[in-house]
Amino acid sequence: MFVHVNVAASADGKLSSRRREQIRISGSEDMTRVDRLRADSDAVMVGVGTVLADDPSLTVKDPALADEREADRKPRQPARVVADSHARTPPDADVLDDAARSFVLVAEEEPTEHVQSLAGVGAEIVVAGTNRVDLADAFDTLEGRGVDRLLVEGGGELIFSLFEEGLVDRFTLYVGSMVIGGRDAPTPADGDGFVERFPDLDLVDVERLDDGVLLTYDV
Amino acid sequence: MFVHVNVAASADGKLSSRRREQIRISGSEDMTRVDRLRADSDAVMVGVGTVLADDPSLTVKDPALADEREADRKPRQPARVVADSHARTPPDADVLDDAARSFVLVAEEEPTEHVQSLAGVGAEIVVAGTNRVDLADAFDTLEGRGVDRLLVEGGGELIFSLFEEGLVDRFTLYVGSMVIGGRDAPTPADGDGFVERFPDLDLVDVERLDDGVLLTYDV
Repeated sequence: MFVHVNVAASADGKLSSRRREQIRISGSEDMTRVDRLRADSDAVMVGVGTVLADDPSLTVKDPALADEREADRKPRQPARVVADSHARTPPDADVLDDAARSFVLVAEEEPTEHVQSLAGVGAEIVVAGTNRVDLADAFDTLEGRGVDRLLVEGGGELIFSLFEEGLVDRFTLYVGSMVIGGRDAPTPADGDGFVERFPDLDLVDVERLDDGVLLTYDV
Repeated sequence: MFVHVNVAASADGKLSSRRREQIRISGSEDMTRVDRLRADSDAVMVGVGTVLADDPSLTVKDPALADEREADRKPRQPARVVADSHARTPPDADVLDDAARSFVLVAEEEPTEHVQSLAGVGAEIVVAGTNRVDLADAFDTLEGRGVDRLLVEGGGELIFSLFEEGLVDRFTLYVGSMVIGGRDAPTPADGDGFVERFPDLDLVDVERLDDGVLLTYDV
């Protein structure tokens, strides 16, 4: 599976403010780019923190791109994936609506009733890991269900876990020309952080976009 | 006074790990650039957190640049400035050595004995603000003592305060091609963070340097 992580951050490295409210960091050129990225992916993934903070639908917005997918004999919309160890996704979350197939990755220890209520609204449950989702295992399962290209859009906790597990193939970072600040604001890679060995990136492209810059890295 | 903030951060927006250990984020081209920036400044400033974590000397390393300064009838080394509300700078810190003039900015409520021990090793004490340094006031005092160009090298708490007070004129950010991660790791702008209005930056230059990229913003 090819895993592409894409985020927009402020120049000081924040995905949003300490209140976790969504902030418009990029502009229309970047949004068009992200819509194309989604259309080129088999599934679009976020962590449950992002679902709880933003309630995103993660769908392709441009009908022409959905048409293209259909012409390629794909579903009109890529699937959605939520990394959600403790099955905290609300059953009425937009990411579980009927616009597209939805997967929720949960850990084995998860209370059955939460999982059942998610399955009840049509989510496909992938169980992997004991008390925390084993991402590598879950990705193997997703690959078996047709997900060869996965786009990950956040948040910082999930992205850190992916780097920690060595599961990231490409990282694109839109750096918006603004300052958000905040020692408690989310960043592109939160988690516990690395302390001795730091994953190296290979900067393969630099492109000015809207009033910011898009950095593309191979991992 | 012209205030230039310069920092190096990882692609995920971290100045160092959660342990606050210094990490080599940039390479030799960037170090040469920073040495030139220092040589072109009247003073180089950090917050006391950076002094306690890294004990930097903040001096110009290349003797040819120090020679240039002398030829321009300047001191061989720019002055050093520490923002240190509670006078926690150790008297034996490198930033207070005799390589250059040193200023310590403290708040009025600071215990006299700390301040006296700093003055005892030759630091010039600038008192501004009641229980926290009033940076605008302190900068006025520094300007009166010949500091027209100030380079600020961190950390995130000081830089956030400078943006909050509207005191930054230029912001340069070297984005290193690595991931550090960590929800508690320092970022280019920490502090409480903005929640409603976010300072806008104007991206004036993008330059590849070493294996990363240097972004230059006007504020």
